Amino acid sequence: MSSLKEFLMMSEAAGDLDQYIIAAQEPFEDGLRTLVEIPSVSQHAVCKPDVRRCILSAEEYLQILMKGGTKVDTKSRLIGWDNGLPAVYWKCIRHRKWPTIILYNHLDVQPAEQKDGWDTEPFELVILDAPKVGRQYFGRGTTDDKGPALVGLLAIKFALLRGLPLNFVVVWESEEEDGSMHFPEILAQIKDDLQGLSSPSLLISDTIWPAVHVPSVSCGLRGVINFTFELTTAIDDRNRAKGVHSGLCGGVATNPIIRLSHVIAASVDEAGWVAVRGAHDGLAPLPAEALEAFAQTDAITLETFKRDFGLRSCFAGSVPDLLNRIWNLPTFEVTGIIGGVTEPAGAVKTEIPGYARAHVSCRLGPGQDPVQFEQALRKHVARIDSDMVIIRRGGVSRPFAMDPKGPYLQAAAEAFKTGFGYPEVVFDRCGGSIGAVIHFTELLPGLPVVLLGLSLPTHNYHGTNENFDWRQAAGGIRTFVHYFERVANMPTAQK
Amino acid sequence: MSSLKEFLMMSEAAGDLDQYIIAAQEPFEDGLRTLVEIPSVSQHAVCKPDVRRCILSAEEYLQILMKGGTKVDTKSRLIGWDNGLPAVYWKCIRHRKWPTIILYNHLDVQPAEQKDGWDTEPFELVILDAPKVGRQYFGRGTTDDKGPALVGLLAIKFALLRGLPLNFVVVWESEEEDGSMHFPEILAQIKDDLQGLSSPSLLISDTIWPAVHVPSVSCGLRGVINFTFELTTAIDDRNRAKGVHSGLCGGVATNPIIRLSHVIAASVDEAGWVAVRGAHDGLAPLPAEALEAFAQTDAITLETFKRDFGLRSCFAGSVPDLLNRIWNLPTFEVTGIIGGVTEPAGAVKTEIPGYARAHVSCRLGPGQDPVQFEQALRKHVARIDSDMVIIRRGGVSRPFAMDPKGPYLQAAAEAFKTGFGYPEVVFDRCGGSIGAVIHFTELLPGLPVVLLGLSLPTHNYHGTNENFDWRQAAGGIRTFVHYFERVANMPTAQK
Repeated sequence: MSSLKEFLMMSEAAGDLDQYIIAAQEPFEDGLRTLVEIPSVSQHAVCKPDVRRCILSAEEYLQILMKGGTKVDTKSRLIGWDNGLPAVYWKCIRHRKWPTIILYNHLDVQPAEQKDGWDTEPFELVILDAPKVGRQYFGRGTTDDKGPALVGLLAIKFALLRGLPLNFVVVWESEEEDGSMHFPEILAQIKDDLQGLSSPSLLISDTIWPAVHVPSVSCGLRGVINFTFELTTAIDDRNRAKGVHSGLCGGVATNPIIRLSHVIAASVDEAGWVAVRGAHDGLAPLPAEALEAFAQTDAITLETFKRDFGLRSCFAGSVPDLLNRIWNLPTFEVTGIIGGVTEPAGAVKTEIPGYARAHVSCRLGPGQDPVQFEQALRKHVARIDSDMVIIRRGGVSRPFAMDPKGPYLQAAAEAFKTGFGYPEVVFDRCGGSIGAVIHFTELLPGLPVVLLGLSLPTHNYHGTNENFDWRQAAGGIRTFVHYFERVANMPTAQK
Repeated sequence: MSSLKEFLMMSEAAGDLDQYIIAAQEPFEDGLRTLVEIPSVSQHAVCKPDVRRCILSAEEYLQILMKGGTKVDTKSRLIGWDNGLPAVYWKCIRHRKWPTIILYNHLDVQPAEQKDGWDTEPFELVILDAPKVGRQYFGRGTTDDKGPALVGLLAIKFALLRGLPLNFVVVWESEEEDGSMHFPEILAQIKDDLQGLSSPSLLISDTIWPAVHVPSVSCGLRGVINFTFELTTAIDDRNRAKGVHSGLCGGVATNPIIRLSHVIAASVDEAGWVAVRGAHDGLAPLPAEALEAFAQTDAITLETFKRDFGLRSCFAGSVPDLLNRIWNLPTFEVTGIIGGVTEPAGAVKTEIPGYARAHVSCRLGPGQDPVQFEQALRKHVARIDSDMVIIRRGGVSRPFAMDPKGPYLQAAAEAFKTGFGYPEVVFDRCGGSIGAVIHFTELLPGLPVVLLGLSLPTHNYHGTNENFDWRQAAGGIRTFVHYFERVANMPTAQK
């Protein structure tokens, strides 16, 4: 058996979990190839048909899943199909009183082009059998988040075959990498359904371990808010930006790149600290327990962190400093800047540009309010350059933090131990942001959220040569199934 | 008669100077069209054949010039044809004791693309009959420096027809916009010829008037030196720059754009002053007389300056401050910057880039040494970011200043008065740089240099919709001829 569709159709349990996982490898690779080879880049308008195609493929898998083994009434819906980017909503209610696990993933991906430095074509699944890692999968979306989505699908398949007393809901969206701007509209369409679920909890596999062999349950996410700074300093008679000769005007004309540099330099100091007045307002300090538990592991040192991400230098002076900076503190990062003439690389066009633009992405720590942060940033920039135009684009994600002592998070940690057999499991934070988490918890206050990520620092999240591997996928299926079993066995009081 | 070739072939004087100029209009436009429609962009390797084609066209005009009217032995040579970008050298020695005017222009141009904001195709000559300005010529190179080159050619033609007692040399190069790096090699090939010339003086038309109706003789040029700053902060396993996720590494990874911003912001303060220690060393203050003479005119106000160049704001607080800044003081201008993802304009790729680059162009005032300046800048940058790589590319041009009281500059000013009939002529400085000036004066110490520019602030030097006009061309021919007559009549002692 090799195709994912055939595997999902299977109606007899394929032996025990170990045997099931062995049998699931080829189907997993078949499904991953199908999804990765659809360039579902949500930020590129031109990829919109691909994004829809990707969601349609995924819905087909879910429809097949109902046919094999599942004797209950299930429903699958495409949502948001007419407005913006679509999602698939699948519901499998087997008993109205059983606990319900809501599985969320996103099937859209970051932009990628081979010329960015990829060794392979980003939208072609390339499989390597590496000596140490084992079976590796290269391609955009393998680790973020198509691979983890298929891990969840295969775990649900096993749970259904085994008849675990659980209900399942799957929500796969396609706009996460573009800020999940329309996700509230998606949820509004399934609001009644979701509010009627019995003992719901949310399971998301879109976070990253601190190191290989150190599974982590994430207890927090930073928020995110993106800005574009624009400055036009010289215009022609039709009000369009124009450059001026650097000999004729050099020394008196406002140089928009220099002005942007002043604003940027005044926003982050030379030690990497955000220097915007009010930018830390509301921030909840990182709980000592989060750091203590983590400090007992050797999961991260400054050296492994730098090595895993390929950083030539790093602002942090110690591991606690590092964790505080990447998990909790607000950031101000310039993700792109453009102005003037830069090509060819030795360009000497002696012209002061009339326009420049910088793209800024800020993460916010738990307790912080994006609206307040935005006000503080706008005031700060206006103090330095009142001509600068600030545009906020895309979605805004609020930060989020949880108590690791909750039963679902503890269940997740235990499941990781059984699933992977590694010596330690840590409760960490994730410096990233997942917009959907906030939207789900707004709709269902108190909803337990479990961030059971499978990605590794070496998987190059958002970067070139993004990859995933079978060891993480297999361990992930096993972990998810163990987690399902624990949720199924939870005393109702804890739900 | 309409073609420039036919006009240059003419062997009988076409009446007086006024009649000659009227007859020269169509030939001028024909020649300008030919030259402008060759995209001789020296900075683009792909344009190298066009650059050569442009020089060949120009040489053809010079060859024809010899055939018509000129009964003496003349020579034309293509120089630098095999190495780098070529020049044409034309020599017309009519009497070994007559004074020799060396006319220099460059026939290469700045890059231009319609998408930069041009209303017309940059490499197509578009002629407009504007109500106020008269006949306007749009296209890259019209004012810098193909138009002025043809003005010189037509003035020489008239001088030859009239039998003025002068010798002429023409040097038209094709690498000025790329820093005239190989110009010393060009001069080395004609060194003996140049050193044997009788009473040589250099005439260059590649500068700009402070305002419409205010002809200017430039008495100084700033030097120029260009740098590229590069920073790689994160690398993959093959040592190539790579981005890292702004959630996973945001707050600790060095952001190359922010580092560049720190360096840039520390190099120019918020009032536009260069803040590099040692950057002003050697600077000769602007002579009071230069400012006084200028102050008596109304040639520039802060408002006209801003309007002419389309500047939305300007650092200078008064006209003398303005002139000091644009004519004399060293500058640090960022002409281009690139890093990360900026497209589409609302891009939200939440990735910290692994590489960024800024292009910096510095002008130097008279008295300053580019070598010292470079050392000062390198030390300054190393103090702020020792990982930053600084590359200097292209040619370096030293600054240059002259005493306006010299006979050639006085002759030029008088010629302007007769040539244009405007009420005032000013001695100014030019904030730009012309590498050839330095190289000529190194080869021929004491060589009088006359900068008789014809361009106006509204001609958009180096910018979009570059243009020239017949009023400037016609006045230019008249001015050049009057200047020739004055040089021909100079007492030998003054030569």
